[in-house]
Amino acid sequence: MSELFTVTRRVRFADCDAAGIVFFPRYFEMLNGVVEDWFAGPLGLSFAELHLRRHASLPTAAIEARFVAPSRLEDDLTFTLGVTRLGGASCTLRHRIAAGDELRFEASQTIVHAGASLKPEPWPEPLRARIAPFLESQP
Amino acid sequence: MSELFTVTRRVRFADCDAAGIVFFPRYFEMLNGVVEDWFAGPLGLSFAELHLRRHASLPTAAIEARFVAPSRLEDDLTFTLGVTRLGGASCTLRHRIAAGDELRFEASQTIVHAGASLKPEPWPEPLRARIAPFLESQP
Amino acid sequence: MSELFTVTRRVRFADCDAAGIVFFPRYFEMLNGVVEDWFAGPLGLSFAELHLRRHASLPTAAIEARFVAPSRLEDDLTFTLGVTRLGGASCTLRHRIAAGDELRFEASQTIVHAGASLKPEPWPEPLRARIAPFLESQP
Amino acid sequence: MSELFTVTRRVRFADCDAAGIVFFPRYFEMLNGVVEDWFAGPLGLSFAELHLRRHASLPTAAIEARFVAPSRLEDDLTFTLGVTRLGGASCTLRHRIAAGDELRFEASQTIVHAGASLKPEPWPEPLRARIAPFLESQP
Repeated sequence: MSELFTVTRRVRFADCDAAGIVFFPRYFEMLNGVVEDWFAGPLGLSFAELHLRRHASLPTAAIEARFVAPSRLEDDLTFTLGVTRLGGASCTLRHRIAAGDELRFEASQTIVHAGASLKPEPWPEPLRARIAPFLESQP
Repeated sequence: MSELFTVTRRVRFADCDAAGIVFFPRYFEMLNGVVEDWFAGPLGLSFAELHLRRHASLPTAAIEARFVAPSRLEDDLTFTLGVTRLGGASCTLRHRIAAGDELRFEASQTIVHAGASLKPEPWPEPLRARIAPFLESQP
Repeated sequence: MSELFTVTRRVRFADCDAAGIVFFPRYFEMLNGVVEDWFAGPLGLSFAELHLRRHASLPTAAIEARFVAPSRLEDDLTFTLGVTRLGGASCTLRHRIAAGDELRFEASQTIVHAGASLKPEPWPEPLRARIAPFLESQP
Repeated sequence: MSELFTVTRRVRFADCDAAGIVFFPRYFEMLNGVVEDWFAGPLGLSFAELHLRRHASLPTAAIEARFVAPSRLEDDLTFTLGVTRLGGASCTLRHRIAAGDELRFEASQTIVHAGASLKPEPWPEPLRARIAPFLESQP
């Protein structure tokens, strides 16, 4: 049984556009924050440690999102993250964002573990071992 | 022969993250700006007219992007927009972003023409007629 | 004895610039969030209620900030808000932002209660009564 | 007679909040862009050169702004920058932002020239010489 990582976040005034709904680029900033929390939490490697002390980074190689329903100021969104693929230096995340039972959007994001030169570098073993439990089991 | 819309934009300090490259959510803000310029320019319907006076909006229903190479402070990016599908109330855009000859990222974005209630509404005829020349010709 | 409103917020990756410190415009977004939390919390009037249902708003008329020391990724900031002046339709806030014992910045912000037309309108009485306890007592 | 630096910038969709006006933290991002353009232009030292190659930075030590009238989507803003004080390692800027003849806001911003450790370092002489003509003449 694979693990899921869940965080909640309220839609803030700063997230909303002149149409009164979340400005979609802000959704990607939220997703970046979910990955940040996942690393700092269950993966045990904070972004400060990763970026500032190890001089590594996690560029996004690909992302796709399908927006199902708009979100409005003060909606409480639940972000759920799972892993659909764990490669040598990359990892594909499945994001599901809902308000209560209502799906707002889904996204798939491929991140890469990169060194100081932004070239891909294999996941360090302790990190890989902590990502693995989130990998969705194959049927 | 289909038309393409092109704008250039320099990477600003505010676009860059602690790794010194464009923070990917900012890329989507840039794409939103390209669509804004396309509407205000060749389509002849500015976002102020669309949002504030017609009380319409253009929510993004889906977006996917593939990031090929990072962009850095003061890179001059060329954004090229074409249309791959023109539906009754939606439109799928192909974005290609390069610095000189080097491709930085590609994206496909589906926008929807929506009324005040955010429900899809058919493209007004004059607008549709102005989008049509950007539709990529079938082989 | 006057009341103070306090919230904490961690510096996120999205807050930091290429110099690795908080990009100062993001500090103002954080301050806006503090005011948002103060309204939703002790003042009992959320921004959604204020903006979307009452069609009021809270434009900032003036702000000044003095930055004492930079903040970095994952610093835990404590935001403390008090009121230095409560006018008919305006209110001047004193913000103090620290990481532990270290002051990072101080700001003074004057917000105005405005109606749909953005013209100042007197604070509604229940709201004024809830702001009053935060007014710093005169010596 | 002192020089002034002027740039224009249209208010974009991404700048506006749910009240349909410029979200004030975005104004500070705009001011940062004005300083960026001033350095890349008349001062002859781009932010990429300053930050990435010299490992210097320009933290803001203090800023104050007075917002006179709101700005809306597609307003064309003119930003005018002058210098009111030129210190050993700092510089105080006067910003005036108008739409046509209408003043929207004024700001005073003190920036500091800092080295890699974020400690103040004297302005390099060629840079100081290029800032000097912008210093407002005393009466």
